[in-house]
Amino acid sequence: MDYKLLQALAAVVEQGGFERAALTLGLSQSAVSQRIKLLESRVGAPVLLRKAPPVPTPAGQRLLNHMQQVRLLERDLLQDVPMGEQGGWQTRLRIALNADSLATWWAAAVAPLCEQQGLLLDLLTDDQEVGLRRMRSGEVAGCVCATPTPVAGARALKLGDMRYLAVARSDLLATYFPPGWEAPAWGQAPAIVFGPDDQLQHRFLANCGYQGEFPYHLCPSSEGFVRMLCAGIGWGMVPGLQIIQELEQGLLREILPGQGVEVPLYWHYWRNGGRLLEQLTQQLASSAPGLLGKGQVSSLPS
Amino acid sequence: MDYKLLQALAAVVEQGGFERAALTLGLSQSAVSQRIKLLESRVGAPVLLRKAPPVPTPAGQRLLNHMQQVRLLERDLLQDVPMGEQGGWQTRLRIALNADSLATWWAAAVAPLCEQQGLLLDLLTDDQEVGLRRMRSGEVAGCVCATPTPVAGARALKLGDMRYLAVARSDLLATYFPPGWEAPAWGQAPAIVFGPDDQLQHRFLANCGYQGEFPYHLCPSSEGFVRMLCAGIGWGMVPGLQIIQELEQGLLREILPGQGVEVPLYWHYWRNGGRLLEQLTQQLASSAPGLLGKGQVSSLPS
Repeated sequence: MDYKLLQALAAVVEQGGFERAALTLGLSQSAVSQRIKLLESRVGAPVLLRKAPPVPTPAGQRLLNHMQQVRLLERDLLQDVPMGEQGGWQTRLRIALNADSLATWWAAAVAPLCEQQGLLLDLLTDDQEVGLRRMRSGEVAGCVCATPTPVAGARALKLGDMRYLAVARSDLLATYFPPGWEAPAWGQAPAIVFGPDDQLQHRFLANCGYQGEFPYHLCPSSEGFVRMLCAGIGWGMVPGLQIIQELEQGLLREILPGQGVEVPLYWHYWRNGGRLLEQLTQQLASSAPGLLGKGQVSSLPS
Repeated sequence: MDYKLLQALAAVVEQGGFERAALTLGLSQSAVSQRIKLLESRVGAPVLLRKAPPVPTPAGQRLLNHMQQVRLLERDLLQDVPMGEQGGWQTRLRIALNADSLATWWAAAVAPLCEQQGLLLDLLTDDQEVGLRRMRSGEVAGCVCATPTPVAGARALKLGDMRYLAVARSDLLATYFPPGWEAPAWGQAPAIVFGPDDQLQHRFLANCGYQGEFPYHLCPSSEGFVRMLCAGIGWGMVPGLQIIQELEQGLLREILPGQGVEVPLYWHYWRNGGRLLEQLTQQLASSAPGLLGKGQVSSLPS
């Protein structure tokens, strides 16, 4: 197995193109291209679909998966058998996680390990299913998502529940949900939705006995979402953990106090991912539940 | 021109698939598929690449561009010539913008228009070039980015400058940038970078006379970025506008007070985009410069 070839494949996929891969590897673009072709002639099958960005074929994914695991094992080896100049910041882990975790508890949970181990993180925020697909293809070493079932070769660990509250600014509450309001009001009040795949509002409204349509904005940004809520543009479902201050200050208020939606969060990680991934797993297991617990807030009935 | 067919095309592209398009239109999936095929037989060329998600061909893009403009014109028509039941929340504008604008000034700038006109926004956060490509293909009605040159058929309006500051938590400053530190320290201190395309750090470091490598985390989330800064995981370039509070409270401090990087922001919009897009343009022109000006903060030398 020639790891120079695998390294070229990994760089093209991680960097999203041949040009950036060449920059990262300090090679010419044609040298990278040659390595990929050589790899394909050895494998006897294409490893990349030449799209923008390039996408690994199933054979390519299998190779990347292998490469990721070898990298993690090499890091452990180098701790025990130092070989030449490795510097203090050599190890990166690629992790896929949901945007709301990254916007809330993630940084506090991983900061100690980054400092102690010199760990560098390549974070990817994706839809739930994309994160697990990256996991399956070996593109990432771990993944935070709501699915309990691990992919083959991996384990899944429950970290806790993220509690989402339906909130709005007071004047929006007064306009659309005055005392004595009834379910059809949901059809009038503009909502803010994270993306077309986001089903939280539908779950919440179904719990409230409303199944109809409702007007909505699409806002694919956790911080932008809270800014739109605070600007009075609409109501929305947001992690309690993200708006502790806004609830305390009375900037945002729950529409139906006490009626949130819980989303479980699982940490998916490779079974033989090496020592650093194990340490990250331990770190998450010990710190995430407490951090997520702080989000189990609920404002008092108004 | 049969607008039922164009509507099917727009739904498939906007919803990212035939199944969701069918749901939105209240049709069966095969009916949507039939409409696309009929459109292709009339155009004499494919309008969609059948990928996941489906991508419009150049011919399809031209049709979507037309559809977007017709929708905006129809809205104006309906204001003057009401036809049947239209409801209060009929008009959506799709806008591409950079994540940092969405995380800071955008909501406050557009909130009044959303309320007055019942405007609903489909926001997309993309790399700079993707936003302009969406503009060119007619997928979006407007776009906020750093490029001054408008695409054909559109105009570009300068909104102001976004000022980015290089900041870190005090203990990180003390570790890597103690009194008397010199340029090579940049090669040791872990940075936080938004994504592989993000060149802000490189511009800033070049201004500081440093051209070498540096260790970095990748964090593609505006709020996650600030959380990682506040957790002491690394230093990073962040809009002053986004950390006014953290600077005031002394949670984050500038590494080199007064040495920021300015990024100009332009509003790109279709020349014949209809009255609502004109109103949005006026709203942005009158409110964005003042909001962006609040980000021209700089902490005092420590």
